[in-house]
Amino acid sequence: MNDLKPQTTFIDPFAVNFDLVEGIMHEPKSRLVRHASDMAGHYADAAALKQLIAASNPVHYEVFETPVPHEYGHLMYCISKLQPGQVGEECFMTKGHYHSTVNTGEIYLALRGEGLMMMKTPDGRCRWETFAPGRMVYVPPYWGHRSINTGREPLTSFCVYPGDAGHNYGDIEKEGFPKRAFRRGDRLIVE
Amino acid sequence: MNDLKPQTTFIDPFAVNFDLVEGIMHEPKSRLVRHASDMAGHYADAAALKQLIAASNPVHYEVFETPVPHEYGHLMYCISKLQPGQVGEECFMTKGHYHSTVNTGEIYLALRGEGLMMMKTPDGRCRWETFAPGRMVYVPPYWGHRSINTGREPLTSFCVYPGDAGHNYGDIEKEGFPKRAFRRGDRLIVE
Repeated sequence: MNDLKPQTTFIDPFAVNFDLVEGIMHEPKSRLVRHASDMAGHYADAAALKQLIAASNPVHYEVFETPVPHEYGHLMYCISKLQPGQVGEECFMTKGHYHSTVNTGEIYLALRGEGLMMMKTPDGRCRWETFAPGRMVYVPPYWGHRSINTGREPLTSFCVYPGDAGHNYGDIEKEGFPKRAFRRGDRLIVE
Repeated sequence: MNDLKPQTTFIDPFAVNFDLVEGIMHEPKSRLVRHASDMAGHYADAAALKQLIAASNPVHYEVFETPVPHEYGHLMYCISKLQPGQVGEECFMTKGHYHSTVNTGEIYLALRGEGLMMMKTPDGRCRWETFAPGRMVYVPPYWGHRSINTGREPLTSFCVYPGDAGHNYGDIEKEGFPKRAFRRGDRLIVE
């Protein structure tokens, strides 16, 4: 890194305003919304997902970003809001992703709600950490990751990752995660 | 970056717990405390600083970190708590720093209190942004930066920066910042 520094664009400082409880960004330049219908193939119970889509196709999660250059040295950030709910017995979750630049990590600071960060490596390791307000989960480089809302209210979190990380959704979609989170009555089961 | 990827150590995921209002990390591995006596040379009114040190030498700020590898792809994070107060008319502030790897940025998410992020470049540009709860300041690559508490309660913030950024305090100490923040009666003056 010392002899061959990558180019990093010079930009001026700026600020953005979040509602940390609501999990939204004010005046976002980019807002991603995923509905139940965007989640085909991700849940164990495909029939339950089909029913849910037919009934109301609810919002699963929203991600707010204001992009900066996708380059080494810059930092991407977002605030996200994952709704509570179940597909059959399985808790609402995000699609999950690896980074395109595999050796880059991500930091999630949970602000509201309850949940799990489910993480896996391409060679099959699987780990999870709980989300609770004020708890930060460190997703190290190389680990694919997905957020899961195990509670009764929205799960909101603030995240930061390197500008040159990129997203790789395809491999997770093919591989899936070794573990899923289910709510059975009042019990949370990870299996 | 594609042909010559730097080494990034594989580690397992983990989580840490913060009190986001108090601005502290539970069970930190590293805690940096700066008192008034650590701030020699940074305030305009050296005599007022001397008096303050003699009177009580109060804590200026605390920074809590749990280090990860100082490498490309990892992310450093901290929570910091900057006390309210003045040295003469000048508001309490941090020393400020550049990154040793100059083309790396930093993200600050303000959680409590009021303040300014003062930023400068080596060639003399100067910009500042206000801190307020839920407001995030983007310190782009190349910009030196210092936090200033302009309010009456602690200023707490959560920050993230690249693992290979490093700190350069020396150049800021020599150069100073072109602007300072003063409280005169009820007015905040940046000059």
